[in-house]
Amino acid sequence: RINSERLWDSLMDMAQIGPGVAGGCNRQTLTDADNEGRHLFADWCKAAGMTMGVDTMGNMFATRPGTDDSALPVYMGSHLDTQPTGGKYDGVLGVLGALEVVRTMNDLGVKTRHPIVVTNWTNEEGTRFAPAMLASGVFAGIHSQDYAYARKDAEGKAFGDELARIGWVGDEPVGARKMHAMLELHIEQGPILEAEAKQVGVVTHGQGLWWLEITLTGRDAHTGSTPMNMRVNAGLGMARITERVHQIAMSHQPNAVGAVGHCTVYPNSRNVIPGKVVFTVDIRSPEQPKLDAMKAEVIRAAHAVAAELGLGCAIEDVGHFDPVTFDAGLVKTVRQAAETLGYSHMDIVSGAGHDACWINRVAPTVMIMCPCVDGLSHNEAEEISPEWAAAGTDVLLHAVLEVAEV
Amino acid sequence: RINSERLWDSLMDMAQIGPGVAGGCNRQTLTDADNEGRHLFADWCKAAGMTMGVDTMGNMFATRPGTDDSALPVYMGSHLDTQPTGGKYDGVLGVLGALEVVRTMNDLGVKTRHPIVVTNWTNEEGTRFAPAMLASGVFAGIHSQDYAYARKDAEGKAFGDELARIGWVGDEPVGARKMHAMLELHIEQGPILEAEAKQVGVVTHGQGLWWLEITLTGRDAHTGSTPMNMRVNAGLGMARITERVHQIAMSHQPNAVGAVGHCTVYPNSRNVIPGKVVFTVDIRSPEQPKLDAMKAEVIRAAHAVAAELGLGCAIEDVGHFDPVTFDAGLVKTVRQAAETLGYSHMDIVSGAGHDACWINRVAPTVMIMCPCVDGLSHNEAEEISPEWAAAGTDVLLHAVLEVAEV
Ligand SMILES: NC(=O)NCCC(=O)O
Ligand SMILES: NC(=O)NCCC(=O)O
Repeated sequence: RINSERLWDSLMDMAQIGPGVAGGCNRQTLTDADNEGRHLFADWCKAAGMTMGVDTMGNMFATRPGTDDSALPVYMGSHLDTQPTGGKYDGVLGVLGALEVVRTMNDLGVKTRHPIVVTNWTNEEGTRFAPAMLASGVFAGIHSQDYAYARKDAEGKAFGDELARIGWVGDEPVGARKMHAMLELHIEQGPILEAEAKQVGVVTHGQGLWWLEITLTGRDAHTGSTPMNMRVNAGLGMARITERVHQIAMSHQPNAVGAVGHCTVYPNSRNVIPGKVVFTVDIRSPEQPKLDAMKAEVIRAAHAVAAELGLGCAIEDVGHFDPVTFDAGLVKTVRQAAETLGYSHMDIVSGAGHDACWINRVAPTVMIMCPCVDGLSHNEAEEISPEWAAAGTDVLLHAVLEVAEV
Repeated sequence: RINSERLWDSLMDMAQIGPGVAGGCNRQTLTDADNEGRHLFADWCKAAGMTMGVDTMGNMFATRPGTDDSALPVYMGSHLDTQPTGGKYDGVLGVLGALEVVRTMNDLGVKTRHPIVVTNWTNEEGTRFAPAMLASGVFAGIHSQDYAYARKDAEGKAFGDELARIGWVGDEPVGARKMHAMLELHIEQGPILEAEAKQVGVVTHGQGLWWLEITLTGRDAHTGSTPMNMRVNAGLGMARITERVHQIAMSHQPNAVGAVGHCTVYPNSRNVIPGKVVFTVDIRSPEQPKLDAMKAEVIRAAHAVAAELGLGCAIEDVGHFDPVTFDAGLVKTVRQAAETLGYSHMDIVSGAGHDACWINRVAPTVMIMCPCVDGLSHNEAEEISPEWAAAGTDVLLHAVLEVAEV
């Protein structure tokens, strides 16, 4: 079993970096806080006897050697970046849990045939730079590095420039590493495990997603002196599409969600009818046909709303991935580890996207989930218990020992 | 008649200060650009032989003496501040038209019994600091100066601090001046005069307004892993209320308008269900009973939407004024001036709020309107013709000569 106290202390130490305003974290990707968090993680890896490699997307790979130089490494990890008002565990548990597994192996003097690599993937959250899971996507060959470097944040700063600014452009080519397997521990970010009173989620599938950035163009005009029939109100268009997205998701229950989380209104003045709005629709389903249908319905609805209000409408794909099926053998290994350890567990579908969803394209991959209080995540109040964290990390340890061959 | 070319040149010179991004202006109140515009205006007033007084709200008063020291002055003016994406004429025509009237009187060596004062009112637009017409409101005793000084912009900067920063806290107590009359020339900001092919609008009434700032509080949570039935989506609430505001305005046609022009979404991340939104509803009608009914309906709708989604709902009054009836005698004087000059004219109701609406509470007041192309205002593409500007200013000249007694 892992050292639960040490794991918790590391989680709390990392949470000091990029503190939020309400007890959580704001350690967005490629900020100074991200840089600081990376250095702390690198120091910990060094102290645990690992050697660090960094690729040109800033992905970090800390290696613990195996006994067989020719064996491909087993990877574990997740991400250290957070939402602007994020929690202390989303991503972080997967990285520091993996580190704790290595520390435990060091304590016990365990040797494995396969080397073990603890990973921190760059820009998983996708908040500052869309899409999410950007660097694991480049690693898996989904995006080109040029595409990634050109992604812009809300202030117009480019990913590539910010990565260079914080000093984490490594020398490894992205995706050059070959993996024997990849295991990601993550909090559920949803309510199911807690509701079912299970300690461990064995993740069999991940739901697919579309992020559609919609730009509606109307005409900014005076809210007082412009008659109702002369208005070309982009804000009203956004309101109608937001409602339609909700209705579309509701009409595909169960196994479908949809919302608008992000919007910008121009010129955003109390007495100006919005002349332009830009907002992002987020729709998801674990079922490919549902996801396809929802996407088509959202696009149709957006154009219909735009037509009825006389608005221009442009729709851009700013992120998508298909539903994921994780490696059956690894799923069995994880389930068996939970069983052996005596932890209550259930199979579960991930509602969120994860780096594992992309890595699954290039290597056998699986995820382990830990419950979180009230299913709350992407909120500073995100919470887990030290016992849940330990149970998930114990399962990770046992699964990795199995996969990496003690 | 006034010197149309000189007026136009001054309008174009002022438009150089705080230029917009699309041919218009961004000279928001109490910015460095506002300061620069004020200095240019002050220089022009000095050159026209006037003496400047400034009150503690930064309102500017340039006086041309009359022949009778005991006669109350006749005021003309409007505002030099603009929307963030504003036009070159909204407000500016009223200030520089008034200046042109004085210049013309100087050219002609005309003397009046009453002194004449050209005024620039601070923060008419209400974009940076709500409410609109803030400083004329303090002048008219509607707001206290303490209330005005404490108003905050989106960055949390206070009106009082910003006024001091740009150096325009004058020494006159606000509202101490007594007025014989006040005349405000302004572009219509609506489509009626152009559609009716009239050169001059004789403003008999102004519509009333409510700005209701609504804060909805939900729970920020993950857009992917939070089931639809566990969401407390503040963004969806805003969407529904935005639609309801539109429907309420439509149900009160004619003579009613409503829209949401301004919103802030927290945390505004693509994969976070909005936990909080703050937005401002703008509703207007020239008919008091309609305005009252619309306000009650919006408040009821907001609470109903909040209840159906489980949202907290707080509604703050950030600006309102009742429908206005301008001084009957001055209305007649303006109508007569247009008649004498041979300009086509019609009576009109102002759709926008104006400083004249507040000053009407403390002195006989009237407005003169000039058409604008396509009724477009609060848009950088706002346009008028030099002929329209001249016609309105001619009417202002003749009305003022009448009221100030040549
Ligand atoms: N785990 C997580 O929150 N990832 C961000 C990408 C997503 O929105 O699902
Ligand atoms: N004239 C003008 O646009 N004033 C601003 C106040 C309002 O929104 O009516």
